[in-house]
Amino acid sequence: MEKVFASIITIGDELLIGQVIDTNSAWIAQELNKVGILLKHRVAVGDVREDIWQALDAESKEVSLVIITGGLGPTADDITKPLLCDYFGGKMVVHEPTLKQITHIFEHILKRPMIERNAKQAEVPDTCTVLLNQRGTAPGMLFEKEGTFFVSLPGVPHEMKWLMTNEVLPKIPELFQTGFIEHRTLLTAGIGESYLANLVQEIEEALPAHIKLAYLPNYGMVRLRLTAFGFDKAALITEIDRHFEGFKEKVKDYLVIDEDLPMEQVVARLLKESGKTLSTAESCTGGYIAHVMTSHPGSSVYFTGSVVSYANRIKESILHVPEETLQTVGAVSEDTVKQMAQSVRELMQTDYAIAVSGIMGPDGATAEKPVGMVWVAVADQNRVKTQLFNFRFDRRRNIELTATNALNLLRIFIKEKP
Amino acid sequence: MEKVFASIITIGDELLIGQVIDTNSAWIAQELNKVGILLKHRVAVGDVREDIWQALDAESKEVSLVIITGGLGPTADDITKPLLCDYFGGKMVVHEPTLKQITHIFEHILKRPMIERNAKQAEVPDTCTVLLNQRGTAPGMLFEKEGTFFVSLPGVPHEMKWLMTNEVLPKIPELFQTGFIEHRTLLTAGIGESYLANLVQEIEEALPAHIKLAYLPNYGMVRLRLTAFGFDKAALITEIDRHFEGFKEKVKDYLVIDEDLPMEQVVARLLKESGKTLSTAESCTGGYIAHVMTSHPGSSVYFTGSVVSYANRIKESILHVPEETLQTVGAVSEDTVKQMAQSVRELMQTDYAIAVSGIMGPDGATAEKPVGMVWVAVADQNRVKTQLFNFRFDRRRNIELTATNALNLLRIFIKEKP
Repeated sequence: MEKVFASIITIGDELLIGQVIDTNSAWIAQELNKVGILLKHRVAVGDVREDIWQALDAESKEVSLVIITGGLGPTADDITKPLLCDYFGGKMVVHEPTLKQITHIFEHILKRPMIERNAKQAEVPDTCTVLLNQRGTAPGMLFEKEGTFFVSLPGVPHEMKWLMTNEVLPKIPELFQTGFIEHRTLLTAGIGESYLANLVQEIEEALPAHIKLAYLPNYGMVRLRLTAFGFDKAALITEIDRHFEGFKEKVKDYLVIDEDLPMEQVVARLLKESGKTLSTAESCTGGYIAHVMTSHPGSSVYFTGSVVSYANRIKESILHVPEETLQTVGAVSEDTVKQMAQSVRELMQTDYAIAVSGIMGPDGATAEKPVGMVWVAVADQNRVKTQLFNFRFDRRRNIELTATNALNLLRIFIKEKP
Repeated sequence: MEKVFASIITIGDELLIGQVIDTNSAWIAQELNKVGILLKHRVAVGDVREDIWQALDAESKEVSLVIITGGLGPTADDITKPLLCDYFGGKMVVHEPTLKQITHIFEHILKRPMIERNAKQAEVPDTCTVLLNQRGTAPGMLFEKEGTFFVSLPGVPHEMKWLMTNEVLPKIPELFQTGFIEHRTLLTAGIGESYLANLVQEIEEALPAHIKLAYLPNYGMVRLRLTAFGFDKAALITEIDRHFEGFKEKVKDYLVIDEDLPMEQVVARLLKESGKTLSTAESCTGGYIAHVMTSHPGSSVYFTGSVVSYANRIKESILHVPEETLQTVGAVSEDTVKQMAQSVRELMQTDYAIAVSGIMGPDGATAEKPVGMVWVAVADQNRVKTQLFNFRFDRRRNIELTATNALNLLRIFIKEKP
């Protein structure tokens, strides 16, 4: 067995002018980790022949597996396939199962005639093993050169994911004898990164070389992640778990959860376990908390709905915030979010409610109410709890911070329930 | 003047195990483009000394500017700064303005005592020009080696952005004499990528070498982007605009907008121009359409609010969908979304309303109602228009596709207004 390293090469000018954010690489990295393959590099290059060629050369010297995405479309800017044909030698031939698949897609799904440009996508270098793409028209391809394996996949995320899951990952055990990678993550709230580092310094320094600790601060919370690599899986798990217990013990006063879960799933689990439901009344977050809660399958069990009261008159007419409150203390106030939380909980007949109102920026601030000022309320049938936050970032981040911290407030509220 | 190329090196194990998605690179690429600098590579490496060193060597051979982000925190896994000190020679010295800044942050913003670990962040290699970070504790650094400039920035997005905007970009004209990059983008709907390619083939082939065309398919729509590089800005603009007009004329039957705008901003502009307002009633999108509409500053002028009726009883109690409708044709039906749209429009007193109901997956499908089936309705005071969609992707993408296509339906509805 050996430590197997991989690199990802993403191809496309759109990555180099910043028109798209690369979400593929993170997903591929996670999947490779699960089968014991460590990532060495992620490289993005443009639709430039010599740059792609050079990247293939450079990465194949470093790693045993190169995953290439992008540049396989039917248009003139997609140059990856002819380049791979030259790079690995051979000539282009028609792959009949792919031609059949493309024909099927045009006939039965897109319901429009297939044109020559589409049919040409069935051509592949005869030096590759074709990975049939059952989710699109561009086939995946597997090559080998001087002991390194190369996989070329379309850049469209759902096609790439399907091919990785169904064609690439099942082949990994045939291609490599890998070791095992284990991650353990815990989420803390209420302690800064540097204080946390001091708290765990002693046990961090005692970690063996094959277990690494990383700090991942985000949204006012810090994740600690242990990563271990080894060849004996059982021993590795025992060892990382022992160290992990040590870290958990050290940070117990700040521990949110000892898994790599986002805050909304921590809250979702609390709700599910107790059979309770949640609704939200959102002003400044404009529906983002509801979106985050419902982005996970099965959320209809515990999430009932939301009133997004972006305009003040909706706070009055649907959430019954008194006109007087809005005129005296204003929409961004403790009184307003208290009323919003209680109203939405009654309107939606849920066990809990969250309400938020604040200034997300860049406009709308006043001397008393600066950008980033947010009132949050959480409520159940008997209690309402409020908190004032002052974030100081851009609009997008202020919205995300508000959501995470509002959900954290609800988490504490549920836990401290009298 | 010369064609100036840059590379971005992002540092952090979290990028290589897929724990975070790199959003910094896309933003940096956009900003560099605006000042005439072209990106050659984006490279992600782990917190591994030899890998970072090697990436610095490799990129500096290729480009005139290397932007490095990450690895500057106060914890043991942050190894970038001492490495840069060795790479560029020199010794660590305390940078007094940074120490003052860190002290200020702890005293006045975080309101907790500064510990040694934090103070140490004020140390910088004496071979660099310090870029004072007014948004955090990790200073930016500018180095030069054999004709290549290197900028090291913290990985925290809002700190990185502040330093790029206020310290790095203003220095670009002093460091380089660059050319100009111009992009023109148009958004099409209702035509596939390969058909579009055939439609514009003739004018695409007639493009000069310094103007490139790219196809960017997404959410059932295709963006076409022209990118031109040159040294005479006025001539470049005249030339790219002439070609752009040609493309616009060719695709005019499918043209949504001739700018690089997301669909929600196309709709927002239509609403703003006519002084109209919008509300949404969302089932399967769980507030995502409201979130997308309110993610842009100034949205309170045209976006009023939303009812997220995730549970069926909310569709009944707040949106007045008859119990009978829910029991006979069900929540995912034309009748339901029609009622939802009309009810929310009246409840929120807006000019327009959007309603959606569908099966986002992976659960909840039946034989008649598969994953990806979505009914959408758009309404004004006089009309309701519905459309049935069948997406076939994962939950996240189905939600995003629903939002974009619902907004496109509203766009067409507003335009065709009798």
